This record gives sequence, C-alpha cells and structure tokens, in this order.
Amino acid sequence: MLIALFPGDGIGPEIVAQAKRVLDALAIEGMTYEEGLVGGAAYKAAGHPLPPETLELAKRADAILFGAVGDPSCDSLERHLRPEQAILGLRKELGLFSNLRPAKVFPELAGESALKPEVAGAIDLLIVRETNGDVYFGEKGFRKTADGLREGYDIMSYNEAEVRRIAHSGFQAARARRGKLCSVDKANVLETSQLWRDVVIEVSADYPDVALSHMYVDNAAMQLVRDPGQFDVIVTGNLFGDILSDQASMCVGSIGMLASATLNGSGQGLYEPIHGSAPDIAGQGKANPLATVLSAAMMLRYSLGLNAEADRIEAAVAKALAGGARSPDLGGTMSTVEMGDAVLAAL
Amino acid sequence: MLIALFPGDGIGPEIVAQAKRVLDALAIEGMTYEEGLVGGAAYKAAGHPLPPETLELAKRADAILFGAVGDPSCDSLERHLRPEQAILGLRKELGLFSNLRPAKVFPELAGESALKPEVAGAIDLLIVRETNGDVYFGEKGFRKTADGLREGYDIMSYNEAEVRRIAHSGFQAARARRGKLCSVDKANVLETSQLWRDVVIEVSADYPDVALSHMYVDNAAMQLVRDPGQFDVIVTGNLFGDILSDQASMCVGSIGMLASATLNGSGQGLYEPIHGSAPDIAGQGKANPLATVLSAAMMLRYSLGLNAEADRIEAAVAKALAGGARSPDLGGTMSTVEMGDAVLAAL
Ligand SMILES: CC(C)[C@H](C(=O)O)[C@@H](O)C(=O)O
Ligand SMILES: CC(C)[C@H](C(=O)O)[C@@H](O)C(=O)O
Repeated sequence: MLIALFPGDGIGPEIVAQAKRVLDALAIEGMTYEEGLVGGAAYKAAGHPLPPETLELAKRADAILFGAVGDPSCDSLERHLRPEQAILGLRKELGLFSNLRPAKVFPELAGESALKPEVAGAIDLLIVRETNGDVYFGEKGFRKTADGLREGYDIMSYNEAEVRRIAHSGFQAARARRGKLCSVDKANVLETSQLWRDVVIEVSADYPDVALSHMYVDNAAMQLVRDPGQFDVIVTGNLFGDILSDQASMCVGSIGMLASATLNGSGQGLYEPIHGSAPDIAGQGKANPLATVLSAAMMLRYSLGLNAEADRIEAAVAKALAGGARSPDLGGTMSTVEMGDAVLAAL
Repeated sequence: MLIALFPGDGIGPEIVAQAKRVLDALAIEGMTYEEGLVGGAAYKAAGHPLPPETLELAKRADAILFGAVGDPSCDSLERHLRPEQAILGLRKELGLFSNLRPAKVFPELAGESALKPEVAGAIDLLIVRETNGDVYFGEKGFRKTADGLREGYDIMSYNEAEVRRIAHSGFQAARARRGKLCSVDKANVLETSQLWRDVVIEVSADYPDVALSHMYVDNAAMQLVRDPGQFDVIVTGNLFGDILSDQASMCVGSIGMLASATLNGSGQGLYEPIHGSAPDIAGQGKANPLATVLSAAMMLRYSLGLNAEADRIEAAVAKALAGGARSPDLGGTMSTVEMGDAVLAAL
C-alpha cells in the first residue's frame, strides 16, 4: 500500500508531519510512503503547482494524504500556475468527484462554536460535494463586450452523468447514516440546478428507503445557522458545496478539527483537512494538526479498508481532547508537535 | 409621490397591508398608492408573473413596496412564467442593481439568534449585493453533450462597468458607516471574480478613506459564523450576495426582521423584506410584518428623502419590540395584525 504525502504550502508540512507520526505509530504492515511537491512549494521548486512527477505518483498511490495549498506570494501568477491548481488538478486528473465533509462536534469542544452550545451540539451532518464539474471546470476567461469593456466569464454546467454519480454517493451515504438526504441547488434561477434537481429525483427511485428533500442554497445557508441539527446528509454541487461546507465546519467550532475525503469511482482517495494553508501562522508550530490526523483516519477507512486502525486514531484524538489537549485555535497553548504527542500518548 | 404596492404571493398581502397601515398613519402629504399584480398571483390572474401593466406602473412609480413572490404550485411552469421572474424582471427592467441588506440585532432580540448573544449582539453590517448581472442573467439553457447526455448550463459573467458601479455603491456605503469595505469573491477559481477584484481595486483609488479588504466566499461564509462583528460593509456579486445575505440575516436571529432596498442610478428603489413568501403559513395571520414595515422606512429614507418619517417608523418598531410585541417567529403569539397594531400604538 503506497501512500502519497503531499504537504504543500504554509502549515501543510507541519500538520502532515504529525499525521505521519501517528500513522508510523500504528506500524501497518506493507504501508510505504512517497512524498511529492504540490502548490506554491512545487511552483517554486519545479515551475508548476502540480509537476508531472507528482501527478504520476498520485496516480500510482493507493491514497493521498494532502496538507494544504495556497501562497499569497503566488497571487499574481497566471491562473494555471497558482497553488490552487494542484488540488483542482488532482481532483480532475484522478476523477476524484465525491468530496465527503463530515461535521460533528466533539463534546469537549461544543463551547468553542459561535453557535449556542445546544445548537452546535446537535450538529452531526455530512456534506457530499461534487468536485469534478460545475463552474470550477467550465470554459472561463476574459473577453471584450460589444462596447469594448473588459469582461470575465465562467461557464457553469452539469450533465446528467455527473449528477447521477454524485447523487448515488449522496444516497449511499444517507443510507449508511440516518436515511435523510437534502439536495441543495438554486433551481429557481439556474438551469444547471434544474437539471441537477431533475436527475436527483430520477436517482431517488433507487433509494426508496432514503427521505429526499430539496433546498435552495440561500435557504440552506440560513438553516445551517438556525438549526444545523436538522441535516443528515447534504448533497450539492462544487461551488455551493465549497461555501456550505466551510460554513458548516465553522458551526462546529474549530475548522482545525475537520477532515475530508475525496473519492473516485475506484476507491482511490485524497484526504485533507478542510482548512487552508494559513500562511499567517506557517512555520510557527501553532497549527492544529488534528484535522490532518483525522484525515489520515478517513484514509485508512475509505481507501485501505483498515477500519480498526481508523477507529484507534479517532479514539486517540477524542482521548487527547478529553485529556485537555488544546492548540491555540481551541483556546489552548499547545504547539503542533505537542498536539501530535498527545495523540501518540493516547494511542 | 407615487408608491407602487406589489403584495405578491403567500404572506405577501398580509405583511404589505400592515406596512401600508403604518404609512397611512404618517399621513404624508402628496403620497399616493397604486397596487399591482406580481408573482404566482399575477400568473394566475393575468398569465404572467410580471404583466405589462405591472411593469408600466413600476416604471412610473417613485418607489416600489414589494411583499414576496414564490408559489410551489408554479414550480413546474416554464422558467419565464415562474413567480421569481417578477422580482428578477423588475430588478433588470428598472436597472435596480444595488441591493442593500443591512443586518443588525435589535437588542431585545439578541437571544433569538442561534449564535451566542455576545456574537450576535456585535452584528452591525450591510451587504451590498449586485442584482443586475452574474450567473442570474447570463445565457442559460439545456443542451446535449457530445455523448448525447442532457446538460444544464448558465453563463456567469461581469463586465468592468457593472463591477464599477456596484463598487461605488459599496465604497459610498462604507464611507457613510465605519469606513470598512470587504469585497467577497472566488478569485482563486473564477475569472469573473478575478475581473471583479481587479476593478474593485481600481475603484478603491477614489476612496483612500475606506479600508478595503478581499475575502473568498467560502471564508466569508465561515467568518459570518465565527465573528460577524468584524464586518462593516460587504460588497459582492449577485449569487454570493444571495447566499451570504440570507446567512447574515439568520445570524441576527429572525429573518422576519430584515428589510432591504434595491436601487438604480436614478434614486428609484424597490423595497422588500429579505424573507420569502412562506407558503406554509400564508393566510393564517402568523407572519411577522416588521421586515416589511422596516422596508417602508428604508423607502422613505432612500427614495423619498423623508428621513424624519423613516426615523419615526424605526423608533416605533423598536418601541413595540421593547414593549414585548412578539410574533411566533420571535417566540411570541401575536398575529400579523396585532404586530401592526403594536407599531401603530408606538408611533
Ligand atoms: C483552494 C480552493 C480552490 C478549494 C476549492 O474551492 O475547492 C478549497 O476552497 C476547497 O474547498 O478545497
Ligand atoms: C426569489 C429569488 C429569485 C431571489 C434571488 O435569488 O435573488 C431571492 O432569493 C432574493 O434573494 O431576493
């Protein structure tokens, strides 16, 4: 089993290092690692945010553990050279279309949320976000209007096959949880959403045991504040999923705790914390590595079938928190390495 | 001064009626009213959600007081006949491009928010949303892919003139408030956003006294939960503004309290509550009319220059709340008419 490690930019290397320590401690037989360059770090070293060797390694690997990309010093590069293209390129090239973003409050951290504890404490939802289509990957560029004005444009679209496969992901996830699926779109304005809604309804015929509902994205953004406990699984497109999953993660309290998986049709997956590269605290040992540690647990479960080992990691994180482990984002003072130590001690 | 009254669907007629009572009580000299059909109600009566007579009245009026549109029984109509086309058509035909959505907690209602009282209590922000462009008004439709698959598409775009005028709205609003403007986009993925950001930066040269910042929309959705008190004015496009303003309104506690104005370049404006037509409680006298009453106050201030009268309405709403007026959405039992009575009594 080959794991590709892509630490990336900012706090990426620090947090991936702690996840690697935890994986090492499990001493899983046959697990090997290779590291690759991504993001601004790759651009600076090799002239491209997703160099060919990195892509080749990603394709060969059984799973990818990803840190974060994003580097303000690259903001004025041409779009295809910016750090973000690493994650977008990996999602596209490997067909990683099903991005799973669970949000659940650790009881010890319920007080961290800006939401009232009783509201935050009720959150236990999963956002299933499509990550191979939508306005992210349509034709885009700059052109002149008839009056000679500069104009930027991006084409949003989904076809029925793209919607169908993510709808199946959503329904299957709902079936494995509490049996409720809420599909989020903007069908009152967008034809892309109208097709989305039509196809989700078609697919629902295969899942009579799942209760399907539909919600406009503006209402969903409200409901995630008002009563996030009402949701089980939310399935939505790339752009709305980007916004709602970040919102949901903040409802939980600390974005430093949230892991994600992005899967393709053949069990391969990319695992990464939901948070970004946090350039402001990079290299200072202040980053919370737990989202990355929990992403490693998701990797063991979803791509490698190592459920017992995944459980061990998750239990160790819970135990470390119960024992008082707190990085600055959780109101404490522990360093990135000390947080890693706490998980190792609990393992 | 001619006011066009467009009650619309669902709870629209009930809430507009209360706002009209409050306006009547002010007995403003020279103010006349004409009522028009919009939304599903207009479709059912006249075959179109925005009949020609309604549009003609809208163009003639000094200001429009709008209830809400949206009717589930119209969901399967062709898009151009759906209720939502009334509001989209009015925005477009009258050039109403600058949608102002203030969000501020009434001290009496701070406890209503799902956010902790200290977080909700700090909210005092204004979202300036562009409402004439973006993916709302680009070419859209259904087509077949090369493989014969059904595909829905919508073109997102902004040109520099569209961005420039809304940027001026944002900077001017910030100048009249606390001098901070946050422009929200997704420039790390979208070229539409890249042009948006470039033009906002160009316009900022005219406003050296305003502190400009930029935020990606996913981060903005997080920050509106984590620490909404950090924002003064947010300027953003049509789609992101739709999502973020609904989210912000719910942070305040009750969406039943929030008013909005949508202005064109010649002082004409459309005034409406942020909430929708709430078909589930239509006709039951349960709707909170205060957002519409406060929209009428915005109308007096922004389109008619009647600041003293606007102040009187706002003070009366605050007094009614302080006196315990509470509709069901605010945790009380007062009917729509009783809420109107309470405002009139306080006036
Ligand atoms: C970095 C960026 C391109 C990316 C996205 O928008 O998908 C990020 O926000 C995410 O959610 O993974
Ligand atoms: C009804 C709908 C078309 C509209 C919009 O998306 O603009 C509404 O949600 C709003 O925010 O005014």
